[in-house]
Amino acid sequence: MKQEFVNNLFDVKGKVALITGATGALGRAICFGYGYAGMKIMVTGRKDETCKALCDELTAVGIECGYSTGDPAIEADVIKVVNDTVAKFGEINVLVTAAGYNNPQPIIEQELSMWKKIMDSDVQGTWLYCKYVGKQMIDQGKGGKVILVSSARSKMGMANYTGYCTAKAGIDLMAQSLACEWSAKYKINVNTINPTVFRSDLTEWMFDPESAVYKNFLKRLPIGRLGEPEDFVGPCIFLASSASDFMTGANIATDGGYWAN
Amino acid sequence: MKQEFVNNLFDVKGKVALITGATGALGRAICFGYGYAGMKIMVTGRKDETCKALCDELTAVGIECGYSTGDPAIEADVIKVVNDTVAKFGEINVLVTAAGYNNPQPIIEQELSMWKKIMDSDVQGTWLYCKYVGKQMIDQGKGGKVILVSSARSKMGMANYTGYCTAKAGIDLMAQSLACEWSAKYKINVNTINPTVFRSDLTEWMFDPESAVYKNFLKRLPIGRLGEPEDFVGPCIFLASSASDFMTGANIATDGGYWAN
Amino acid sequence: MKQEFVNNLFDVKGKVALITGATGALGRAICFGYGYAGMKIMVTGRKDETCKALCDELTAVGIECGYSTGDPAIEADVIKVVNDTVAKFGEINVLVTAAGYNNPQPIIEQELSMWKKIMDSDVQGTWLYCKYVGKQMIDQGKGGKVILVSSARSKMGMANYTGYCTAKAGIDLMAQSLACEWSAKYKINVNTINPTVFRSDLTEWMFDPESAVYKNFLKRLPIGRLGEPEDFVGPCIFLASSASDFMTGANIATDGGYWAN
Amino acid sequence: MKQEFVNNLFDVKGKVALITGATGALGRAICFGYGYAGMKIMVTGRKDETCKALCDELTAVGIECGYSTGDPAIEADVIKVVNDTVAKFGEINVLVTAAGYNNPQPIIEQELSMWKKIMDSDVQGTWLYCKYVGKQMIDQGKGGKVILVSSARSKMGMANYTGYCTAKAGIDLMAQSLACEWSAKYKINVNTINPTVFRSDLTEWMFDPESAVYKNFLKRLPIGRLGEPEDFVGPCIFLASSASDFMTGANIATDGGYWAN
Repeated sequence: MKQEFVNNLFDVKGKVALITGATGALGRAICFGYGYAGMKIMVTGRKDETCKALCDELTAVGIECGYSTGDPAIEADVIKVVNDTVAKFGEINVLVTAAGYNNPQPIIEQELSMWKKIMDSDVQGTWLYCKYVGKQMIDQGKGGKVILVSSARSKMGMANYTGYCTAKAGIDLMAQSLACEWSAKYKINVNTINPTVFRSDLTEWMFDPESAVYKNFLKRLPIGRLGEPEDFVGPCIFLASSASDFMTGANIATDGGYWAN
Repeated sequence: MKQEFVNNLFDVKGKVALITGATGALGRAICFGYGYAGMKIMVTGRKDETCKALCDELTAVGIECGYSTGDPAIEADVIKVVNDTVAKFGEINVLVTAAGYNNPQPIIEQELSMWKKIMDSDVQGTWLYCKYVGKQMIDQGKGGKVILVSSARSKMGMANYTGYCTAKAGIDLMAQSLACEWSAKYKINVNTINPTVFRSDLTEWMFDPESAVYKNFLKRLPIGRLGEPEDFVGPCIFLASSASDFMTGANIATDGGYWAN
Repeated sequence: MKQEFVNNLFDVKGKVALITGATGALGRAICFGYGYAGMKIMVTGRKDETCKALCDELTAVGIECGYSTGDPAIEADVIKVVNDTVAKFGEINVLVTAAGYNNPQPIIEQELSMWKKIMDSDVQGTWLYCKYVGKQMIDQGKGGKVILVSSARSKMGMANYTGYCTAKAGIDLMAQSLACEWSAKYKINVNTINPTVFRSDLTEWMFDPESAVYKNFLKRLPIGRLGEPEDFVGPCIFLASSASDFMTGANIATDGGYWAN
Repeated sequence: MKQEFVNNLFDVKGKVALITGATGALGRAICFGYGYAGMKIMVTGRKDETCKALCDELTAVGIECGYSTGDPAIEADVIKVVNDTVAKFGEINVLVTAAGYNNPQPIIEQELSMWKKIMDSDVQGTWLYCKYVGKQMIDQGKGGKVILVSSARSKMGMANYTGYCTAKAGIDLMAQSLACEWSAKYKINVNTINPTVFRSDLTEWMFDPESAVYKNFLKRLPIGRLGEPEDFVGPCIFLASSASDFMTGANIATDGGYWAN
């Protein structure tokens, strides 16, 4: 082993990353984290306005970036976003699928259309990006890193979550299957990150230390606090770097120990 | 504890079971197994002809049964089948979802429509039956047993299985979520059975002891043989009986030890 | 499939079962459950007095039984108990290791000797019984069923449980390894049962519905109640019967859904 | 988020790491990896000679290091090594337990003394280091990172491995329990790394691409190759750095996808 080997382990400079759900709390953290680490960032999300705004913010701090709007559950949109990325940066080295959706309801009250919306946003969108970015990476012939944002809920059921838990469990196995399909043949590593509750506009209410929800949740979280978007950056850079070259098909708990107890 | 308690542990006589995918190899075994155990059997499947034929066979050996044809992925069909079951037998006590579909293909070659077909057959069909049978069981107010046929593949990825593994993983978590949603409140237990390869028309080719596929597979199977439909009956009766009343949200490996190594 | 096949699925009449930790709450339930199911019961435990008393109770209700006293962590004792069982009943068909011990303490306060006591009682005792009963079953040449009582804690850590959780996780893998070692070759199935908290003298205090411990625990238990010894009987008979012949190396959650959420 | 935050994510410069089993293939890689990353290295192992030789090699490339000899299974030795580390470097920030032992044998042929040797080397040694380094970290009052080297075998049984699999499963749960015990209270993160077969003197024979063992093993390894010691360095630095601050009680597969299929 050489000094240089260790120096370069986490070096991701110059890599091109396509990030779905980029304007969400986790997506945003990844964009800044990857950007500050020297990667080129392709932002995508459903709304043109918010994608552009994020891209402007990234540019303002010196991060090289572009954006392309689209719905991850719509095949034509995915194809467009992938093409736009290649048009802009010439290649894709890292894919992070951070788009997702949830709407907890008792199964007997949930309309099929709503359940489908959850499944399409979470699973179909992930599958489509894997398919089209995978094609691109295979064509490029130099490997790649695919990181699917799953959830701690992928292995832990919850009342009213027959959409979300089902979808996220599916994502874990999609990663495991793609690892079997791609890693040896194409040097594409596919892993999931499985977060517990992280701070976002949607979850802000859970962070009130006086609330019963918060106190209850904390009992299950050995780390003693909920997640902050910054907590997500380290694992994402790790999985995009050569430091994790021997890891594929893994579900990486980024959950404060939620799965541990 | 009394002698009588033990005598009745596995007694399922008179219970009404609705079985999807009934005409497949596993479904068929469950129909006969449950029928011989004294249950009333509602057969369902996509084809009228095969459903009727199975029902005739069951009747011929003295099993009380009915059938109702429908596609598990189509909401109106599911509603109809559930209604037909209640119309025929007055109630539903046990649901077994044994319908499923697979078509292994590399993700980059698989059409979205084919992937959707796998997901719809395996996950959406299961969700719809859970929703409408669940409603019925809740209305009946006397609990129930729901058994989702998943797969050993639900936790083990495989090349070309981004449909099937994804779907089956989802089914495991659907069961876990429904256990959280229903078990304490409605005394409905929801578990999965996770089989490895069982003999059927589709898998018959894998049972040739001279084939490389067979020999390779056997290396992963501590039990030293693939599954026969009869192997499925015991776990299914167990999960339908009061012997498993304290079990819910569990994924029961019926896999010859596939998960163990 | 024949009517007779189903009739006999759960029939364990005449089988000889050796049960360790027999005088504990779970062990006792198994003795009565197996006994009422027609099995011959060999009771073992550390104290002659309690073993004899249990044996008298079993005899009083017409169950054929014997007992042999010994410490499961001491090799000579295990050999003696196994020999006594064979001397009394001629063979051993089923082994259930229900002996166990716990003493929760922070690791930095726990003496090595105490940690060893937990490990020896829980893991070494189980290993010794597997070794010597396994030998006997292999010599008999007609297969067998080995059921190791593990715990829901085998996959879920807990503060102050670096002994117990460590030990129970070990037991799960011991079963999985023995399944690989024995099932194909000798037709011996090895599975674990993984209970959550069951009522016993030691846990009685947790069953007070007004206590905070109880209320908190219930939040994690989808089934809505803690375990009663009777809940254990069904899974134990199932795993001792031919109904589970295709199951080996499995960890059977008997936990009210604890693992599911 | 600031540029500086990302710059420092993987920075472990100046941290003091105590590494057990340091002279083995994985331990050695960690020593060099951590050393090149700027950490101060305390080498420990059973033999004075090999510890000294490794320390000389580390010093020769400019790594600050010391060594202290001892058997991880002997309490007095562990106390001595921990004390020596504190005497030399003033504190301990990172513990990596890479010591281990295996001797595969059928359970019915394995002597209790040999099984104990495996368990003591693998589990008791790990427990003792956790106890005494934990005490030290708690006294220091500034948190810490504990990394237990487990194995992909911790969740996958294997014939003749009732020692090794049992031990490694135990280590996973020891980490999970310690995460519950320490993470919130003392800011000590405890995780495992779970490697598949890595190249070492002991495993060199498995790396012959012509051998049946190698070919068989490769069928289970989605990454298409066995592990090289260098593959271990990235995950170890990641888990020692602030990049993984939200991760505790996790079992990190560093296994080429072994668990994924």
